[in-house]
Amino acid sequence: MKEVINCATYSQGSRVANVELHDVHEVLKEDNQFVWIGLHEPAEDVLKRVQEEFGLHELAVEDARNAHQRPKVELYGDSVFVVLRTVQMNKEHHVEFGETHFFVGPNFIVTIRHGSSVSYANVRSRCESTPQLLSKGQGFVLYALMDFIVDQYFPVVHELEQDLQVVEDKVFKEKPSRTTTEHIYQLKRELLEVKRITSPLVDICNRLMRFEIKCISEETRPYFRDVYDHAIRVNEVVDNTRELLNTALEANFSLISISQNDVSKKFAGWAAIIAVPTMVAGFYGMNFRFMPELQWQFGYPVVVIFTISACVIVYYFFRRSGWL
Amino acid sequence: MKEVINCATYSQGSRVANVELHDVHEVLKEDNQFVWIGLHEPAEDVLKRVQEEFGLHELAVEDARNAHQRPKVELYGDSVFVVLRTVQMNKEHHVEFGETHFFVGPNFIVTIRHGSSVSYANVRSRCESTPQLLSKGQGFVLYALMDFIVDQYFPVVHELEQDLQVVEDKVFKEKPSRTTTEHIYQLKRELLEVKRITSPLVDICNRLMRFEIKCISEETRPYFRDVYDHAIRVNEVVDNTRELLNTALEANFSLISISQNDVSKKFAGWAAIIAVPTMVAGFYGMNFRFMPELQWQFGYPVVVIFTISACVIVYYFFRRSGWL
Amino acid sequence: MKEVINCATYSQGSRVANVELHDVHEVLKEDNQFVWIGLHEPAEDVLKRVQEEFGLHELAVEDARNAHQRPKVELYGDSVFVVLRTVQMNKEHHVEFGETHFFVGPNFIVTIRHGSSVSYANVRSRCESTPQLLSKGQGFVLYALMDFIVDQYFPVVHELEQDLQVVEDKVFKEKPSRTTTEHIYQLKRELLEVKRITSPLVDICNRLMRFEIKCISEETRPYFRDVYDHAIRVNEVVDNTRELLNTALEANFSLISISQNDVSKKFAGWAAIIAVPTMVAGFYGMNFRFMPELQWQFGYPVVVIFTISACVIVYYFFRRSGWL
Amino acid sequence: MKEVINCATYSQGSRVANVELHDVHEVLKEDNQFVWIGLHEPAEDVLKRVQEEFGLHELAVEDARNAHQRPKVELYGDSVFVVLRTVQMNKEHHVEFGETHFFVGPNFIVTIRHGSSVSYANVRSRCESTPQLLSKGQGFVLYALMDFIVDQYFPVVHELEQDLQVVEDKVFKEKPSRTTTEHIYQLKRELLEVKRITSPLVDICNRLMRFEIKCISEETRPYFRDVYDHAIRVNEVVDNTRELLNTALEANFSLISISQNDVSKKFAGWAAIIAVPTMVAGFYGMNFRFMPELQWQFGYPVVVIFTISACVIVYYFFRRSGWL
Amino acid sequence: MKEVINCATYSQGSRVANVELHDVHEVLKEDNQFVWIGLHEPAEDVLKRVQEEFGLHELAVEDARNAHQRPKVELYGDSVFVVLRTVQMNKEHHVEFGETHFFVGPNFIVTIRHGSSVSYANVRSRCESTPQLLSKGQGFVLYALMDFIVDQYFPVVHELEQDLQVVEDKVFKEKPSRTTTEHIYQLKRELLEVKRITSPLVDICNRLMRFEIKCISEETRPYFRDVYDHAIRVNEVVDNTRELLNTALEANFSLISISQNDVSKKFAGWAAIIAVPTMVAGFYGMNFRFMPELQWQFGYPVVVIFTISACVIVYYFFRRSGWL
Repeated sequence: MKEVINCATYSQGSRVANVELHDVHEVLKEDNQFVWIGLHEPAEDVLKRVQEEFGLHELAVEDARNAHQRPKVELYGDSVFVVLRTVQMNKEHHVEFGETHFFVGPNFIVTIRHGSSVSYANVRSRCESTPQLLSKGQGFVLYALMDFIVDQYFPVVHELEQDLQVVEDKVFKEKPSRTTTEHIYQLKRELLEVKRITSPLVDICNRLMRFEIKCISEETRPYFRDVYDHAIRVNEVVDNTRELLNTALEANFSLISISQNDVSKKFAGWAAIIAVPTMVAGFYGMNFRFMPELQWQFGYPVVVIFTISACVIVYYFFRRSGWL
Repeated sequence: MKEVINCATYSQGSRVANVELHDVHEVLKEDNQFVWIGLHEPAEDVLKRVQEEFGLHELAVEDARNAHQRPKVELYGDSVFVVLRTVQMNKEHHVEFGETHFFVGPNFIVTIRHGSSVSYANVRSRCESTPQLLSKGQGFVLYALMDFIVDQYFPVVHELEQDLQVVEDKVFKEKPSRTTTEHIYQLKRELLEVKRITSPLVDICNRLMRFEIKCISEETRPYFRDVYDHAIRVNEVVDNTRELLNTALEANFSLISISQNDVSKKFAGWAAIIAVPTMVAGFYGMNFRFMPELQWQFGYPVVVIFTISACVIVYYFFRRSGWL
Repeated sequence: MKEVINCATYSQGSRVANVELHDVHEVLKEDNQFVWIGLHEPAEDVLKRVQEEFGLHELAVEDARNAHQRPKVELYGDSVFVVLRTVQMNKEHHVEFGETHFFVGPNFIVTIRHGSSVSYANVRSRCESTPQLLSKGQGFVLYALMDFIVDQYFPVVHELEQDLQVVEDKVFKEKPSRTTTEHIYQLKRELLEVKRITSPLVDICNRLMRFEIKCISEETRPYFRDVYDHAIRVNEVVDNTRELLNTALEANFSLISISQNDVSKKFAGWAAIIAVPTMVAGFYGMNFRFMPELQWQFGYPVVVIFTISACVIVYYFFRRSGWL
Repeated sequence: MKEVINCATYSQGSRVANVELHDVHEVLKEDNQFVWIGLHEPAEDVLKRVQEEFGLHELAVEDARNAHQRPKVELYGDSVFVVLRTVQMNKEHHVEFGETHFFVGPNFIVTIRHGSSVSYANVRSRCESTPQLLSKGQGFVLYALMDFIVDQYFPVVHELEQDLQVVEDKVFKEKPSRTTTEHIYQLKRELLEVKRITSPLVDICNRLMRFEIKCISEETRPYFRDVYDHAIRVNEVVDNTRELLNTALEANFSLISISQNDVSKKFAGWAAIIAVPTMVAGFYGMNFRFMPELQWQFGYPVVVIFTISACVIVYYFFRRSGWL
Repeated sequence: MKEVINCATYSQGSRVANVELHDVHEVLKEDNQFVWIGLHEPAEDVLKRVQEEFGLHELAVEDARNAHQRPKVELYGDSVFVVLRTVQMNKEHHVEFGETHFFVGPNFIVTIRHGSSVSYANVRSRCESTPQLLSKGQGFVLYALMDFIVDQYFPVVHELEQDLQVVEDKVFKEKPSRTTTEHIYQLKRELLEVKRITSPLVDICNRLMRFEIKCISEETRPYFRDVYDHAIRVNEVVDNTRELLNTALEANFSLISISQNDVSKKFAGWAAIIAVPTMVAGFYGMNFRFMPELQWQFGYPVVVIFTISACVIVYYFFRRSGWL
């Protein structure tokens, strides 16, 4: 896999030329142009070269070297360093996490992808097809990429919502089981993981909207409000799901107790029914010399019939009071 | 259903003329007039035309195109874009959600209704009947519409409060059951849904009161404080209901346990009563050669009477200690 | 009941004259005077007259017309509109809610009482008895009335604290019962109701202390800090009670479970004791031809004594391990 | 007990003279001096005299008259009024609450002790022994006293921490009991009480550090940061203890359930063991004419041995699966 | 162990000379130099000497004397006093706490280690190996040390995360037991302890970044953002773990109840199976004269077979409904 995916200069919304990484400083001298470089897990030397070409701060490059940063935005002089985490569903419907770093300066934008993540080739071609927007400069490119990344949160979040639905069905329609409880716990864990990725985003957008820096032109700021809006919505869904999940956990617990209650009642009911013949049988098993019933010709069948009737009566009694 | 419900110009509080959408730019040139346009799920071309006539921002129109925005207010240059969610009870007493978008500019207000929602014809005629208020301009129209929308939250919220009442009755007056727990959960879910619609409103009103923009005249600002007040009240009721619901869930749980306790006690009590004759019968079922009682003429009736008495005593003992 | 309870002008701390409502605008022309009007559930025309005399804002009057506002303070030009909820214990020791609205302007204060509420005649006479304080103007009157209203919160709040005490006694000293749980729930409900009335007060006082308006003179501002202090204290008690109540609900739940535990243990213990004679009796009820014990002369009494001893031993065993 | 404990003037860090209360206004005229007065539950006339001598605000004196204020700091013109609650362990290891009020002005500090509280004589002598610090003025005296008061919170708070330890031992090492639950509740109650006293302190120190008033010299401000630090630490311990206590309550609850579980298992296990001989005995108690076992010479001992073996097997089975 | 670990002067990023503590004031007179002193639990006189050499504030030195401060940063004139808590795993995999205090002034940095802590010799040599960074001055040294300390939090925090994993396995894969609950509680306790150490760090870094003081040069400020970032991450992991732990506690509780349910069901099932032969045996133990079955030659085996069949049927019935 190539490390430098793409490296091109843009002027007034259209691609001027593809350039080599070591020619970038030449290009940067020209006015009204910006360079857009896409890297994928760059090796040390490529990163070094990029740092030199654009004069990036040591600390930001240090962060870009290691994946596993938390989402953040940092201002270094007149350039901005943004870290976002990407999320996507792979073909087996599992969530895969990635990370993308952005360096945005007066006349450049560098993106560095880490881990599993969709290529940004589509974003690039979409940007190139709307020159009037792309002419707003590298700030707009940052928006387009962030919008693309945040849009990929939605399917993941909706998957979590559907997972909650499954949990609800298990809680309210099935018998209480260990797996339901474990499912709730696992869903909670996933929610916290996603929350950790999405919640810093609101603050990032907020700061990008407020930052008074030249590299993000005034007219592109409303666009970050759009990303902000999406970030808020993702967070709302996650928070909502979490609160419902907590309630589901408690409801689950109530239902376990009710189920325990039902078991106890059923047990008590049947124990009572069985107690009848046991008592009768015990009674007529006594060895008193003078027990007239024992001598009667029809004592036995009468007692049997009486016992069965008593059982039936007891059964209906418990049935009526809802214990059976 | 017509897409352009109404399109009229107003001057000094009274309707001047109905205009066609494509003549609006003519009208906008005149001083001291504003245009009020009402749209309902407009098609792409109508929206395009509106955007051109009033010079609306691309991003706001993009939002207006898609329903399912979250309530918000956004400032684009000297115009304001407001999104509200509407709620209403249909004839079958079900909640139906809708959405209305507002574009308010220096001399126009455009409303775009999506989904199920009451027509704003009544608001229009009420505004027209109070020219001294309507003369405050399009800011007042925005207030009148927001007030109308927020007023429709109250019946929904009161329905939720009554639903809590039903839950309380189920919890405290009926036997614990699975349906009660599920009812609590469903009510919680609905509360979260309504909360999501109403809670951004407080912030929206706050910002409309503070925004220093010409399209909302200074004298209309106190009116938004009125909407703000209603929004706060709706939120208070929702939060209160939610807190009580949480307590109800826990109380429900306590009562399930108490009920379980009662079952155990009752079972224990009756088991004790039944143990008496069983033990006696077992005793006199022993085959010892020398058991004087077995030989007595009245052994059998005496034992029967003794057994019954013992049972009655045990019964009253448990009764007194509250187990039966 | 009269609608206009009192209407008088004050100058330099003493009452100058009683005036009629329609003469008020005459009085207002004079310097260094202010009018204090007390209304009780005024009819539409009285309110209209007041609005005209003092030039009150339409929205504030609209609010004053309807009771059931939430406590708030609003600034209209150079006058202030304050809504407070009143609470009092009636003779049957039930809580009754009322509402009082205040209009305070450059030279007037109007109070409008709704619902059950104590007359403010006492406050008026107390103010008139301290001319040096009353001379601070209508701002001081507002303070005196707010102080009076907040003072009436304390007995109600202390009643709630005592109610918590009752709940504690029920939870920790009585057997777990459905009524205890319901009592906790009802107390929670009442706390939330009172909280809704008292919590906006802190903010109201804060704003009255900070408001830069002429109608509340600088030297009266520290007085609102006094009301603020009381409001904070009421809120603290309510919050404290609520937190303890939540803990009581959980403690109650633990105790129900312990009680359940005790029932189970007791049941198990007695079942064990009863199992002894049952087993022995069953044993010697077997029909084997050769069971030497059955033939012994003292087999029966020996077995009886043995059984009783075994029962006693089992009883002491369970006693020692705390199950009985 | 004397009401006026001490009344002395200080200049440049050393005590100049003891003065009488009614001579104070004479002393105040001199430059570079300040008066330090210590009162203990002063009578109305003493307080009146103090108010006149120093020109204290009516509302602050009103507060000083009543104990049972909440901790606070209030600025009146160029003097400061501070209320702190004191806490101390008496000889019987019970917590006793008190209250101290401070008036600090341009050249005086007045302390008023209410309720049980240690005398501040030690603080006075310690201050007098470090003239270079005392020369910083009455602001330093305020610090010294506040520091002394806050230092007395620590033993109380540590007592609460040890109480938590006791609760933990009860929960995890003893059998679940009603008293453990009640102990948790009582500890929670005490924590809330202490919290109410300590939590306003952070804000008080913050405001004393920021207040731009002459009576607290610039160089004494860092000292209040010291008190602030202690206040934060006390609050942290209280919050920590509270959170652990909540967890302990829940853990307690889990353990009650586990204990319930154990009872059920034990009961089930022993019931199974006892079921064996009961069933066997019942079986050979049947009266069939042809039951060959009954006729065998060794039928009885064989059955006894078989039964005992079966019981032992069942016992080990349950033992192995952890039910017994 | 030596108290003064190291005492050297640095100029332009390289070590100039080792100095004695009492010569420091000589060195401080030279421009463009700073002194870096490392102390380990210094005695009173060493501390006194340091205070005099650098003119440190009495209160800060007072704090440095006592360990057991909470993490904080305080500004005294143009020098800064920072307290951090250190954490490290010793060889037996136990957590050990320590504390380090920093005095940073215009041309010096003093570090005072208390309790168990790794030596900072490595940090010193690493700093000395990057002169271009070390030339940024004592602010950079502060960063390097803080970074080193915060880096040592990560293994401890990951240990806690793994501990959660262990708890999860116990909760979901093992039988509910008292030790699991106690484990959860102990983990919670440790989390709170770590939280107390790490949570003030965010604020400390924030203030170091904002402080406008000369002793931390402008160009070193971004470095504290790096520490800030690590602090945020540590806190996030701790909060996450805490929330999952709370859920685990509740899940544990649900599983205990389910397990209780299973015990009850199993008990009920087996009781039902055993009830069959008991009832049959009781029945044919009755002493009626006319019970034809008793006289049949094959009555006994038929009844035995019937009984066993019934037991088997009952067994499969309960099996199918999941009770056994």
